[in-house]
Amino acid sequence: MPQQAYTDLETHFARIGRIRNALGILGWDKDVMMPSGAADGRAESIATLSVLCHELMTSPVMGDLLARAEAPAGSWQEANLREMQRAYIHATAVPSDLVEASSRATSRCEMAWRTARRDSDFASLLPLLTEVLERTRDIAAAKGAALGLSAYDALLDQFDPGTRRTDIDPVFAELRRDLPGLIDAALAHQDRRPAPLPLAGSFPVARQEGLGRTMMTALGFDMSRGRLDVSIHPFCGGAEDDVRITTRYEQGDFLNAVMGVVHETGHALYEQGLPPEWRAQPVGQARGMSLHESQSLLMEMQVARSRPFMNWAAPLLRRTFDVADDDPAWSAENFYRTVTRVRPGFIRVDADEVTYPAHVLVRYDLETALIDGRLALRDLPDAFNAGIKALLGLTVPSDRLGCLQDIHWPSGSWGYFPTYTMGAIQAAQLRAAAFRDDPAIPDAIGRGDFAPLLAWLRPRIHAQGSRLSTPDIIRAATGAPPSTDAYRAHLRDRYCGPE
Amino acid sequence: MPQQAYTDLETHFARIGRIRNALGILGWDKDVMMPSGAADGRAESIATLSVLCHELMTSPVMGDLLARAEAPAGSWQEANLREMQRAYIHATAVPSDLVEASSRATSRCEMAWRTARRDSDFASLLPLLTEVLERTRDIAAAKGAALGLSAYDALLDQFDPGTRRTDIDPVFAELRRDLPGLIDAALAHQDRRPAPLPLAGSFPVARQEGLGRTMMTALGFDMSRGRLDVSIHPFCGGAEDDVRITTRYEQGDFLNAVMGVVHETGHALYEQGLPPEWRAQPVGQARGMSLHESQSLLMEMQVARSRPFMNWAAPLLRRTFDVADDDPAWSAENFYRTVTRVRPGFIRVDADEVTYPAHVLVRYDLETALIDGRLALRDLPDAFNAGIKALLGLTVPSDRLGCLQDIHWPSGSWGYFPTYTMGAIQAAQLRAAAFRDDPAIPDAIGRGDFAPLLAWLRPRIHAQGSRLSTPDIIRAATGAPPSTDAYRAHLRDRYCGPE
Repeated sequence: MPQQAYTDLETHFARIGRIRNALGILGWDKDVMMPSGAADGRAESIATLSVLCHELMTSPVMGDLLARAEAPAGSWQEANLREMQRAYIHATAVPSDLVEASSRATSRCEMAWRTARRDSDFASLLPLLTEVLERTRDIAAAKGAALGLSAYDALLDQFDPGTRRTDIDPVFAELRRDLPGLIDAALAHQDRRPAPLPLAGSFPVARQEGLGRTMMTALGFDMSRGRLDVSIHPFCGGAEDDVRITTRYEQGDFLNAVMGVVHETGHALYEQGLPPEWRAQPVGQARGMSLHESQSLLMEMQVARSRPFMNWAAPLLRRTFDVADDDPAWSAENFYRTVTRVRPGFIRVDADEVTYPAHVLVRYDLETALIDGRLALRDLPDAFNAGIKALLGLTVPSDRLGCLQDIHWPSGSWGYFPTYTMGAIQAAQLRAAAFRDDPAIPDAIGRGDFAPLLAWLRPRIHAQGSRLSTPDIIRAATGAPPSTDAYRAHLRDRYCGPE
Repeated sequence: MPQQAYTDLETHFARIGRIRNALGILGWDKDVMMPSGAADGRAESIATLSVLCHELMTSPVMGDLLARAEAPAGSWQEANLREMQRAYIHATAVPSDLVEASSRATSRCEMAWRTARRDSDFASLLPLLTEVLERTRDIAAAKGAALGLSAYDALLDQFDPGTRRTDIDPVFAELRRDLPGLIDAALAHQDRRPAPLPLAGSFPVARQEGLGRTMMTALGFDMSRGRLDVSIHPFCGGAEDDVRITTRYEQGDFLNAVMGVVHETGHALYEQGLPPEWRAQPVGQARGMSLHESQSLLMEMQVARSRPFMNWAAPLLRRTFDVADDDPAWSAENFYRTVTRVRPGFIRVDADEVTYPAHVLVRYDLETALIDGRLALRDLPDAFNAGIKALLGLTVPSDRLGCLQDIHWPSGSWGYFPTYTMGAIQAAQLRAAAFRDDPAIPDAIGRGDFAPLLAWLRPRIHAQGSRLSTPDIIRAATGAPPSTDAYRAHLRDRYCGPE
């Protein structure tokens, strides 16, 4: 009864999906609401539910059903079955003692990293980070064997299903070749133009929050199925039909919060646009982290850091903070210049759109070499600093501003970094295709009407769930294979153009 | 290996406890944070985790371990084992198709009740309420058989373990005899004194909230292990080490919110004072709903609606709302008169301390008669109205203000009502014993120092968890068996006294 086996699998996965939804709310609460004294108890509750999910996923009945289940060729159920298989292999490939050893290693390393980063003390972190790397390599080998992939591709597949080094390497090679020249050209172009006027002042948090809600709603966020709150590190989380984004506010700088809200709204629109009929099923989940990042960067980089967007936003910003319409610092043009300012720096999360890929390229080179065993962990700081020097021309003064700045490696998220730049590339390609298919979109953005853009994205990206691979989604949406053409054109046009 | 069996049981129950903690946060979020569109998905997540708890509780391994486990006589582990057995019997006594039928019936009836109450339309609710009553009687019969209890006692035991009708009946008989006379005496006494001056004005919610936090903290609430938020119906929920209370604010009346916060803080202090070494174990949970209510009523009725409390609170209230010290409406005496005003009315949740028991007596009489089959549900409205007439002298004008006002019966919480008044009685007995043991407590309250009172309660009530029965906790704490003496003396002294 392959039909019945498939139906039973849907029931099983729906159950897992509902526990995951619970975990999404518990995780949000941990970062947004939870009092400090509840941390240990919450960690235990989250661990218990995570283990339950893992037990349900790896139960013998699951393997038995997967071996027998069938779905009609070309149906969404067939894609769902494929995603079930993928999830099952990922869950069962790693023996439970290795899962536990890795979890312990990352917990300890993450804790130690907070101190090591503050003190710029790589040496103190080295033993714990070595343990994390070794366990990550063990996991990569186990998953690689089960999936028929190289070690690094197996790690990548956790975050970006189907994406391989062979997809990334040629793209990143182009970028590595062009980026230094592009940065030089952008800086030269910028130097020929007046610097943006500063936006000094004190901007009440309540008004910044109201502004964020106005922007989210304008972009298409459904407030009846989500929330906006505050956390130290902004994120998009929550559950199906309950998509929760966060931001943080600084009295002295509202543009950071605005851009942060727009970014997380891009993620949230993807989640809110997933097909309701596939709810709680693997095929109904977002495709992967690069496509997810494409949605946030499409909204933040492609849309919000543009002149049409600022034409709409400038009057709204002036009204929000009671600024006169003729204040030159509050003109659309000055906002545009402010949010497209290029300034090479040490910190990835503070980087502008042009220099950001350099940070990713350096980390990708290093993490592939570390996973492959071509680089020793003790040599990481020198190699990191050499990479930054080569691409950005900067001399890293301390590991705090260098290889210790990100939580990804201490927390075991190896294979994650490339998805940021792959997402930026996809965002450019999708935006170009949307503007081509519906030339009315840019003018609509200039009026604060984002419905045409969302109408283009909804069926082509959001409603696809995980039915196709990321490249196939891009191909179907844009009519062309994934390529860096639009991305490089975008950077040239915006940052090295004649204006 | 009875020792190993016991240890395994602790592990099993800890797992269930952690899922319950997760459910506590999900339930809090549902009422405080969740956007409306997430209701269906949340209900599914909560149902999935509830079923998981039930599966873990009723698994064959649990019965096997319970049959083999032993713990040293007189140890807390022995009490834990007894509570495990109790939980197991409650969970396994009811066949799963009856659990499901009851859950379906209560869901439908609760939904219909909202409309029926609004429209005062008992007839429309009758078929659904009949279904709920029938399923509740089935559950009562099944649990009664497993526990060796009568049907109603089995229902009571769900909310107040160990309490039986034989404990309640004599107490309620005394009250039924004395209450009409007591109410008359209180009203006559009240009429001989000036009416309280009205506290008119608009009181900003932010200040009311700050006031609530000040009061909670003064009473001993640990803000690092809990929160205060807003919900439509105030409650105390959350999880171990994460006790969350809610209130609601009205611009025109801050005393309601203050008293509500004090009430929920009483519940929360109990939860925060449960023994950490028994965390996630059945013996580490609060004893039952009557003792829980005793803690909230001790703080609200015994402590906060008193002259010493108002001597401390009056200046704080004046400062909070910028009122002159000599405003007679804002004197301690006027606050005291306001919060001890007696006014017979139709709505239980709005009732004062003197008339409240009448509402409970009526409901207790009716629900025991309905469960026993001595009363037909179609006769409920008339019987309800007759009960209110007899005890309060009021003619109920509509079922909205009568038997349709509470959610308890439609939602299947039969056997809950008596715990309110049993708790009020325990609160008076505990307060009297505390004041006797430490005569410095009243003066300390007058200075806003609640530490001596909490120091008395912590070891005697909170840290007992579920080690003893409720009567044994009362006996050990007060040196006397449970009795209504202190309660009736309290009502006479406060409401019919010479002052």
